[in-house]
Amino acid sequence: MQTDEQAIREFVSKWISASKAGDAQTVLGLMADDVVFLQPGHAPMRGKAAFAAAQSNFHPSSFEVDSQIEEIQVVGDWAYLSTKLSVTVVPKAGAAPIERQGYTLSIMKKVEGKWVLFRDANMLAAVDD
Amino acid sequence: MQTDEQAIREFVSKWISASKAGDAQTVLGLMADDVVFLQPGHAPMRGKAAFAAAQSNFHPSSFEVDSQIEEIQVVGDWAYLSTKLSVTVVPKAGAAPIERQGYTLSIMKKVEGKWVLFRDANMLAAVDD
Repeated sequence: MQTDEQAIREFVSKWISASKAGDAQTVLGLMADDVVFLQPGHAPMRGKAAFAAAQSNFHPSSFEVDSQIEEIQVVGDWAYLSTKLSVTVVPKAGAAPIERQGYTLSIMKKVEGKWVLFRDANMLAAVDD
Repeated sequence: MQTDEQAIREFVSKWISASKAGDAQTVLGLMADDVVFLQPGHAPMRGKAAFAAAQSNFHPSSFEVDSQIEEIQVVGDWAYLSTKLSVTVVPKAGAAPIERQGYTLSIMKKVEGKWVLFRDANMLAAVDD
């Protein structure tokens, strides 16, 4: 049987591969309806519908993610997860790539036996050349 | 008897009042030895000693914090806490104030009956005038 930690590692792989593939439906299936995304310089993005709306405007020419899991801690049906991410986006063909790096700290919740994202703190920052 | 949520609210008040007063010892007493602070554009700051070292160089002329607790969720001896902060620092007398605003997402741990900070995601960003 898969442990919770294994399930959360699989969650991360799934999120990243679906994001790269532009598969918004799969990504939306990995979050709670009342998810909250926090990031510097922006108001909190609250709810799956807000994520879906933002995502519908995101059609980069290329999108690469390198991720490293820093830490997973499971406490019953709750967990937190920290990752180190490096993201390179080419907004449209021929445009200069935009690089962002940094950490995330996420709260995960097990809902009907399945781990979903509940709170997400995104601390990625632009990489200076 | 004080609930865990009350204890965490008290933790926040204590952290802020001690920070304002420059009382580093009290602030250090509110974190786990193996605390980790995450923020955009910086490597993680790991451990109480690293915080103490950083703090020893921080002697602003004035330091104001306005805080609002967004959410507290307790799960046994673990909790997460989200706050909305507004910080104004005057580095030295006569200097222009620096304003930063944003959210934090923190993991708290109950150690020997006392809540301490364990992981901290700081998403404060400069406020443009």
